Amino acid sequence: MGNNAEPLERLIEQFNQFPGVGRKGATRMAYQVLSMQPAQAMELAKAIQDAHTRLHRCRICMNYTEQDTCKVCSSAKRDRSMICVVESPRDIVSFERTREYNGMYHVLHGLISPMDGVTADQLCVKELLARLTDGTVQEVIMATNPTVEGEATAMYLAKLIKPLGVRVSRLAYGLPVGSSLEYADETTLFRAFTGRDEL
Amino acid sequence: MGNNAEPLERLIEQFNQFPGVGRKGATRMAYQVLSMQPAQAMELAKAIQDAHTRLHRCRICMNYTEQDTCKVCSSAKRDRSMICVVESPRDIVSFERTREYNGMYHVLHGLISPMDGVTADQLCVKELLARLTDGTVQEVIMATNPTVEGEATAMYLAKLIKPLGVRVSRLAYGLPVGSSLEYADETTLFRAFTGRDEL
Repeated sequence: MGNNAEPLERLIEQFNQFPGVGRKGATRMAYQVLSMQPAQAMELAKAIQDAHTRLHRCRICMNYTEQDTCKVCSSAKRDRSMICVVESPRDIVSFERTREYNGMYHVLHGLISPMDGVTADQLCVKELLARLTDGTVQEVIMATNPTVEGEATAMYLAKLIKPLGVRVSRLAYGLPVGSSLEYADETTLFRAFTGRDEL
Repeated sequence: MGNNAEPLERLIEQFNQFPGVGRKGATRMAYQVLSMQPAQAMELAKAIQDAHTRLHRCRICMNYTEQDTCKVCSSAKRDRSMICVVESPRDIVSFERTREYNGMYHVLHGLISPMDGVTADQLCVKELLARLTDGTVQEVIMATNPTVEGEATAMYLAKLIKPLGVRVSRLAYGLPVGSSLEYADETTLFRAFTGRDEL
């Protein structure tokens, strides 16, 4: 490692901090940067700066946008009685891809995680609660990941929201479509069983 | 995809061009950039620009360096009679890690690959040949990857170098240390057999 020139080492470390990019991947990326044409490398650096300076959080739902409010929040066609609560802006992309959901969103920008020292006040919780005061919203759908942290965050929010007279639901657990019973873990199978639907 | 704001989409595309980074990984990385503190994002952009402006190819071996010649080429302790020819600067790091090789290096910056339209004159071949004219170098070790392109490039270079009266060798094929015969493919096993060493 000490064999690398300082600017190279620094670039490797920069790439290494990305989720899912290990030391090896970061090294490959750094060498890729070095093999680029100068203009190409400048474009990459500029894209990073631009994304950061031009995008900010939507005033309403906290998703990233170039405008004051994002496309979903400013659309007249969306159903304002439902808010789908997600961990990150990426999850909104997944939901929009289904083309079935027509309500609003709210991005928490994280999950409660005592292990990582993330508490509720570091998430966009008060911004969510502020949206529930005028009686427009009838239902809040918890769409946090089916993990311990996702569960805990959903439970925590439900406790805060229910007293406001707003319905709180969460995504169904069950078998992934196209999967096989053989490969389902016990917890998922049990959840699919207890949550079974009438045919 | 069209749902993403333009600066975000552009950043995703930039990351997507890295080897081993797919659309999903690039998206994760782009969102990671957005979640950074502004100073942190600037540092990343600067590291990219710096690496590109401060590093260039060593005048002798073509490895990246901040100086006119790299550490290896300017060291008085290295054996100047041997040149190990590699595809990329990354391979030098691997060799140095063994702490067994004390000769010089030469980086080709690619392999001959008719499929990808890479011909010999796009590689640093003439720079290698120029190093073989003064009689210092006794042996050139081909250390290109054990792939079709690596083989072809080694063969091509051997044909050019042998007439200069310089010995040309290449890395041994065989079983990886710590591996199991059971998992060795036929070609590797055959190579290990034909290349067997006397005990």
